[in-house]
Amino acid sequence: MVSELALAAFAARTGRHLVRPPAEAEFAAFVRAFDERAYRTSLARADVRWIARSDPAFPQLLRSIHDPPAGVFARGSVGAELLTQPAVAIVGARGCSSYGAHVARALGRELAAAGLVVLSGLARGVDGAAHRGALEAGGRTIGVLGCGIDRDYPAAHRELASRMRASGLVVSEYAPGVEPAPWRFPARNRVIAGLARAVVVVEARERSGALITADFALEEGREVFAVPGEITSALSRGTNMLLKLGASPLTCAGDVLEALGVEPPPSDPPVVTAAASAVLDRLRDGASAADELVRATGFEAAGVAIALSELELAGLVAQVDGAYRAVMPSK
Amino acid sequence: MVSELALAAFAARTGRHLVRPPAEAEFAAFVRAFDERAYRTSLARADVRWIARSDPAFPQLLRSIHDPPAGVFARGSVGAELLTQPAVAIVGARGCSSYGAHVARALGRELAAAGLVVLSGLARGVDGAAHRGALEAGGRTIGVLGCGIDRDYPAAHRELASRMRASGLVVSEYAPGVEPAPWRFPARNRVIAGLARAVVVVEARERSGALITADFALEEGREVFAVPGEITSALSRGTNMLLKLGASPLTCAGDVLEALGVEPPPSDPPVVTAAASAVLDRLRDGASAADELVRATGFEAAGVAIALSELELAGLVAQVDGAYRAVMPSK
Repeated sequence: MVSELALAAFAARTGRHLVRPPAEAEFAAFVRAFDERAYRTSLARADVRWIARSDPAFPQLLRSIHDPPAGVFARGSVGAELLTQPAVAIVGARGCSSYGAHVARALGRELAAAGLVVLSGLARGVDGAAHRGALEAGGRTIGVLGCGIDRDYPAAHRELASRMRASGLVVSEYAPGVEPAPWRFPARNRVIAGLARAVVVVEARERSGALITADFALEEGREVFAVPGEITSALSRGTNMLLKLGASPLTCAGDVLEALGVEPPPSDPPVVTAAASAVLDRLRDGASAADELVRATGFEAAGVAIALSELELAGLVAQVDGAYRAVMPSK
Repeated sequence: MVSELALAAFAARTGRHLVRPPAEAEFAAFVRAFDERAYRTSLARADVRWIARSDPAFPQLLRSIHDPPAGVFARGSVGAELLTQPAVAIVGARGCSSYGAHVARALGRELAAAGLVVLSGLARGVDGAAHRGALEAGGRTIGVLGCGIDRDYPAAHRELASRMRASGLVVSEYAPGVEPAPWRFPARNRVIAGLARAVVVVEARERSGALITADFALEEGREVFAVPGEITSALSRGTNMLLKLGASPLTCAGDVLEALGVEPPPSDPPVVTAAASAVLDRLRDGASAADELVRATGFEAAGVAIALSELELAGLVAQVDGAYRAVMPSK
């Protein structure tokens, strides 16, 4: 059998997507010349591990898809067994709304707190928010890249990726040196779906990479959840369309836990002041800016500000771009 | 057979909900003393018609539910045959959000424009917005009261009810004089569901009368649609819950037309200026206040204001409580 690492290295060298050895003279010549030991040494120097498809450590769930990668490259402080633990993918629009960012972060936090691994693509928007949420909960999160394992892509997420590697993993089917290219992202999405027991699409436009992830997941018989959103928002057109196609509506993290048979962590609802409680009730009817809350509650601006800080500290309210939202109930 | 009108009059006199003659001496005495001719004369004086359950003009769809009313009282300038035309109920929260009001009005407008009768309960919030939308389209709308046919309830909708009677109907199973009472509203909701080919729930809290209407509709095998909404909004908890229970997600009026086999009316998308088009694109990503649009587009405040007026006139954008929204696509 040809080494899967040679196949991955050849794919990187030729800029192709390959999961099976091609019957080509060029590939045969490459394999003859390939110094696997030297290649492995350079990977080790860069703190990159290689888990070949034939390796028993390769996750069975990913091996079972119809075109599993030759293997995955991994960077991070934990072992490859993290790849075999129950994981949920949280995916969605890069240019998401404050609603999408809020929901992705809250889901990341709550699913990670319940012991699930949070998977995503390290992209801007929903992906990043989901990873951050998982980190906030002190949980495990895995980022799947659509470019070479050595790349920090997107550059804006360099620090996030480094925090993820400290307690989790960043993985890619692409060897060091592979440039990001648009056509690799759908392929990356099949790896995300392949590693996940369930896929949650938080916000997605009508034609969106997240819908490709959902399609892969449906094909492989994984659970697909879509987060409902306003029908007047283009960012919820893809998710509401998924609901029409039969995806399960997700309204709280508990929906995923129930589907996967995971016990929710125990929690006591925090106790807040009467003013904070009144502000929270108002926010449960929809997101508001602080000045709208002053008008709606009749409280002084300072009183509303104090109530909002109290609610944020208690984890009951979150703010994105000046819009305050009640954190969704976890069950 | 005992007169159904005598039954309705007895129910009104005794403050009860009755759909079958009770085997009671009090009722027998009432029937013996009942002057049906005089009663009919007083109804006619008040411009109230009575369509008994046994009358061929009584709508077959309503007769087919498991406890149809003894008959319905009707006020309005059109004939009772309006009750037999294909109708869609649009129901939801009284204290709805600007999103709910916007969607209810747009649906009322588009479904009425396609020739469907828009049914609702004449309540504040979603009901009123749906009726108004239908009137805006020059369409037909029917209000079903939960109190006596002679009552203007709620008082705030006196003028709306009068406009509805001018081109449509206001109906009730309750005779003149019956006071509004909380327990009558669920009974009223069964009449709404009974008259409708399809029920659309726009926005609803977790425990909400609109969910009762949806339950009745499901029991009677009518189509039930729920409008997806943000999972952080208490006003969408009921609708998102309906989606979990298997209601069809509604994202545009076309969903109802398709389910009922109704042709959508032809429409040409209006042409707008480049500035208006840029503002519209921004609004398709979510509702915004005018000042947010100034920030997001980089246009002058005056330019944004002009673009918004243009979009409102073209029917592409609507404003509720200072929040501008793209009018949802009709298909």
